[in-house]
Amino acid sequence: MESSSIRLAVIPGDGIGGEVVAEGLKVLDAAGVKTETVEYDLGAKRYHLSGETLPDGVLEELRGFDAILLGAVGDPSVPPGVLERDLLLRLRFELDHYVNLRPVKLYPGVETPLGGVRPEDLDMIVVREGTEGLYAGAGGVLRRGTPQEIATQESLNTAFGVERVVRYAFDKAQARPRRKLTLVHKTNVLTFAGDLWARTVDRVSVEYPEVTTDYCHVDAASMFFVNQPQRFDVIVTDNLFGDILTDIGAAVAGGIGLAASGNVNPSRTTPSMFEPVHGSAPDIAGQGKADPTATILSVAMLLDHVGLGDAAARVERAVADDLLGRQVTAGSGRQTSEIGDDIAARVAG
Amino acid sequence: MESSSIRLAVIPGDGIGGEVVAEGLKVLDAAGVKTETVEYDLGAKRYHLSGETLPDGVLEELRGFDAILLGAVGDPSVPPGVLERDLLLRLRFELDHYVNLRPVKLYPGVETPLGGVRPEDLDMIVVREGTEGLYAGAGGVLRRGTPQEIATQESLNTAFGVERVVRYAFDKAQARPRRKLTLVHKTNVLTFAGDLWARTVDRVSVEYPEVTTDYCHVDAASMFFVNQPQRFDVIVTDNLFGDILTDIGAAVAGGIGLAASGNVNPSRTTPSMFEPVHGSAPDIAGQGKADPTATILSVAMLLDHVGLGDAAARVERAVADDLLGRQVTAGSGRQTSEIGDDIAARVAG
Ligand SMILES: CC(C)[C@H](C(=O)O)[C@@H](O)C(=O)O
Ligand SMILES: CC(C)[C@H](C(=O)O)[C@@H](O)C(=O)O
Repeated sequence: MESSSIRLAVIPGDGIGGEVVAEGLKVLDAAGVKTETVEYDLGAKRYHLSGETLPDGVLEELRGFDAILLGAVGDPSVPPGVLERDLLLRLRFELDHYVNLRPVKLYPGVETPLGGVRPEDLDMIVVREGTEGLYAGAGGVLRRGTPQEIATQESLNTAFGVERVVRYAFDKAQARPRRKLTLVHKTNVLTFAGDLWARTVDRVSVEYPEVTTDYCHVDAASMFFVNQPQRFDVIVTDNLFGDILTDIGAAVAGGIGLAASGNVNPSRTTPSMFEPVHGSAPDIAGQGKADPTATILSVAMLLDHVGLGDAAARVERAVADDLLGRQVTAGSGRQTSEIGDDIAARVAG
Repeated sequence: MESSSIRLAVIPGDGIGGEVVAEGLKVLDAAGVKTETVEYDLGAKRYHLSGETLPDGVLEELRGFDAILLGAVGDPSVPPGVLERDLLLRLRFELDHYVNLRPVKLYPGVETPLGGVRPEDLDMIVVREGTEGLYAGAGGVLRRGTPQEIATQESLNTAFGVERVVRYAFDKAQARPRRKLTLVHKTNVLTFAGDLWARTVDRVSVEYPEVTTDYCHVDAASMFFVNQPQRFDVIVTDNLFGDILTDIGAAVAGGIGLAASGNVNPSRTTPSMFEPVHGSAPDIAGQGKADPTATILSVAMLLDHVGLGDAAARVERAVADDLLGRQVTAGSGRQTSEIGDDIAARVAG
């Protein structure tokens, strides 16, 4: 694939989405990666114009791409949850993005709210399941609005779904120097699902004798993210726990402006989707204040996923160098596009 | 109640449980609070001797007390989850401890892993629901151990259960200077339960015009605990989210050695139970290394609950003074009982 061109669907979305995506594409270009991009105007504007979130026709078109780059969707003018569920989550489910990949890494030069933590203490990958658990949307409500109301939410977990993401996590752990995989769950309370996850990790671990495995309850893991992040190398966890843990991870690794993610279907039968973890931040949209770094790091993940590992490494290195430089020139207050320019120049140079 | 004596059931439990509980009782005594205590040997030892976790007869006896003080239960020799579910959680459910009250407060002099955070930035109360949600234990498994296995967990939420804890949280918020209540949930994904919680907060808020309410998704809230804890005053949240948030809270407020909790039935028709958030820490048991502070702060919550507000305030002040002193004499390495002695002396003096 190194020589052919990537067919890339781009969903800038709302708020700062367009601004950060532009910088991501700039860096892709600087990396000398040939891309054919098609832009899709999904998000709040389209919703208001036509009531559409993700038309079936668009979804079918998206299937034809090598990958998707998404900025951010969401706007206060849209009822809460609509774009999240009918666009973002629907894409994850329809395209079977069963791996939600979220590195948590403190780059040298980046300020962390944690006092004594150094970059070597904070370098992990969270492999979050992306297509099951409480995100299945199962549940219901009875006697709504009465004192007798009951509302349920059901977490659905299958051997099929758990095993494939656990295998992926073992592969990731195997490829890293520490070779450590931690299952995070709440087996002492969620006994049925927890048991399935724990048994699956145990069973698959036999095939990975070089990987050390351990287990941590989600409450303790959340604490350790703050006071003992060195504990973790690769984490595998369910959809909701992964959602929570990776936001703590973003906070400790210098903020949501740096957190990248991939919604990955490792089988490559559908395009995977890469997006910054941050939202659309309508309050600062259009002002050139957004930090495009998370998007650019998501582009590095995208390159890695489509087999362009060298280009991915170059982009990540350029970001790391830029971050290191920020320490020295703190408060220089670059605009979104200036940060993109600087990183692109490093990639090209 | 100021003059009569408290009938107190004491469950020291396992590991360091007995050591920390002894200091809690010492401080209670120093506060001049008359107590009649009965000790119950629940925990790992009893489980191994008789297979019992919480015999029905003991549960009935416990109902007769004014309050329960628990150290910690759990030991590696007991299958994981057994004591948690059949003892700890069973007590919460049987005694209808629908409020799980967990202050998150950075005392002056206490070291936090957060670099720039001062005590005035970190002073909140998490009101965690204690008898519903995913902790109901609902769910099941089909085709266990086969590739077709499915495991479910169901979160059960009732108008009755949500409203009573929300009302309690509004009362708490009303009584604090900032008068702010934040609902933490994941309404964009857990639409059925989230909607019940959000509607309930909206409806009850009308009765508390002086309390400002807002809403935060659990993933964002977890991040804000680390990088913007000033956002929060009183939080109301479901059982599992509260479990996770309060462990992050313990981490940022100086560690699990200081985190107190109350499992409260505000109606007082059953005894409420107070316990440090930390576990039994078998690795340091019997060495006098455990910090009894969390237990002593739990005793202060207990005093407050049984109507001895003055004594509660004195105990909390003594702890605060002791914590301030630690800054100066860091590394003085006091034993468990010495810390208890010092705090007791401050309470008495
Ligand atoms: C927007 C929301 C549905 C989403 C999630 O919960 O997965 C977001 O928080 C994320 O982590 O990507
Ligand atoms: C031991 C466990 C069942 C318990 C819980 O999940 O509630 C603990 O983590 C706590 O927070 O008190």
